[in-house]
Amino acid sequence: MTGLLSPQELEARLRDVGTRRYHSLHPFHRLLHGGRLDFGQVQAWALNRYYYQAMIPVKDSSVLARMEDAELRRVWRQRIIDHDGDHAGEGGIARWLKLTDGLGLDRGYVTSLVGLLPATRFAVEAYVHFVREKSLLEAIASSLTEMFSPGIIEERVAGMLKNYDFVSRETLAYFDNRLTQAPRDADFALDYVKTHARTPEQQQAVIRALEFKCDVLWVQLDALYFAYVDPKMAYPGAFLPTESHAPGERR
Amino acid sequence: MTGLLSPQELEARLRDVGTRRYHSLHPFHRLLHGGRLDFGQVQAWALNRYYYQAMIPVKDSSVLARMEDAELRRVWRQRIIDHDGDHAGEGGIARWLKLTDGLGLDRGYVTSLVGLLPATRFAVEAYVHFVREKSLLEAIASSLTEMFSPGIIEERVAGMLKNYDFVSRETLAYFDNRLTQAPRDADFALDYVKTHARTPEQQQAVIRALEFKCDVLWVQLDALYFAYVDPKMAYPGAFLPTESHAPGERR
Repeated sequence: MTGLLSPQELEARLRDVGTRRYHSLHPFHRLLHGGRLDFGQVQAWALNRYYYQAMIPVKDSSVLARMEDAELRRVWRQRIIDHDGDHAGEGGIARWLKLTDGLGLDRGYVTSLVGLLPATRFAVEAYVHFVREKSLLEAIASSLTEMFSPGIIEERVAGMLKNYDFVSRETLAYFDNRLTQAPRDADFALDYVKTHARTPEQQQAVIRALEFKCDVLWVQLDALYFAYVDPKMAYPGAFLPTESHAPGERR
Repeated sequence: MTGLLSPQELEARLRDVGTRRYHSLHPFHRLLHGGRLDFGQVQAWALNRYYYQAMIPVKDSSVLARMEDAELRRVWRQRIIDHDGDHAGEGGIARWLKLTDGLGLDRGYVTSLVGLLPATRFAVEAYVHFVREKSLLEAIASSLTEMFSPGIIEERVAGMLKNYDFVSRETLAYFDNRLTQAPRDADFALDYVKTHARTPEQQQAVIRALEFKCDVLWVQLDALYFAYVDPKMAYPGAFLPTESHAPGERR
């Protein structure tokens, strides 16, 4: 049985989860950032990840609905505002659609979710259900993958701009905002779990929540890899690239 | 817009879903039934599918909880009895554990779910959430994959007995009972949806529910294939076979 960790030890354990399980380690990301995916494979990534982006405010609203403290809600609601914006066409989801636009995907098709891989849907919905069903502490802890996101975003933006002629600073604008939003959100959530995980059981639950969230991200890349990089057979109904510009070579 | 189908046309559309999307078509099943998996890969299949089996009565209890008609509940409760049995060591889940026992997997390890692939967990939980959140009609329709199961069970039992010396009639006893239970359950559910899907919208929802359930089964095999047949990297924490008897050759 693990004893009580100091807040600093808990933080170190959480950072260790990222070192071992964050999706920056996934082979799909190495291909994506290294310019080794073709146009259709990048489309498939953006299309599937759209659903994750679109459900983040649903996830955060579910967390918000469990907070009985106005002070906490005032902080957390900013996440929803960031993703939804103040007007149509603003916010994180709209910026993600600029990326799918830039990749030549029809907006109606993207938002219809018709071409989504089932594993993407299951993983994203698992995240929403997790924050509704687990403790508020675990729900907050599951957001902590944002501790690790600035590194991957910098690598992604630099790599994609360098390697793909079909992306631009403008189509990747989503990530600019995340570079400031994610650390602000992660600092708050990390401080919260370090303060509120007061028993060994709670601390272990917090670590497991972050592992779970790493799984949510990882499974989405597994599904993309299996369906679009090394497919055994076409997934019935899922997005099929109709043209491949193939700016990088396909492994 | 699709118009109203006759009950016979609806049945034909549902059978067509099975022809196109039932997991009998998945390459993992062809390897499993054809003797082309090694011992560790068959272990991984049994271990992961245990969670699906274990959650079936939870799924059916969720359906039962939505039925306001005692006559309907009297029929549906049999599914729970079949899986849980009347005493410890009886029923479908216990029979599945005979299979994992026979494959040399520690029962405590299997039931702890520690070695489960995250995609298995997400897919199975998606099924449970589906029957809680969608209409009762869709919840019942999602069980209709049982229409297609006798064929795959006969193929599986014959293929596995012929090709693997580490399985026996006794360890595969789970499937004997399913050969009579599944058609009985499927006949009832099919009759129910043919009677109760009375609008084009309801009929389309029924078809989509069966497609969804095919996805739930398919994603589990995708995950097994990706993790154990053609792995890109080990999944952090997931089951790793410690010995491979390799009675068939590995592709």
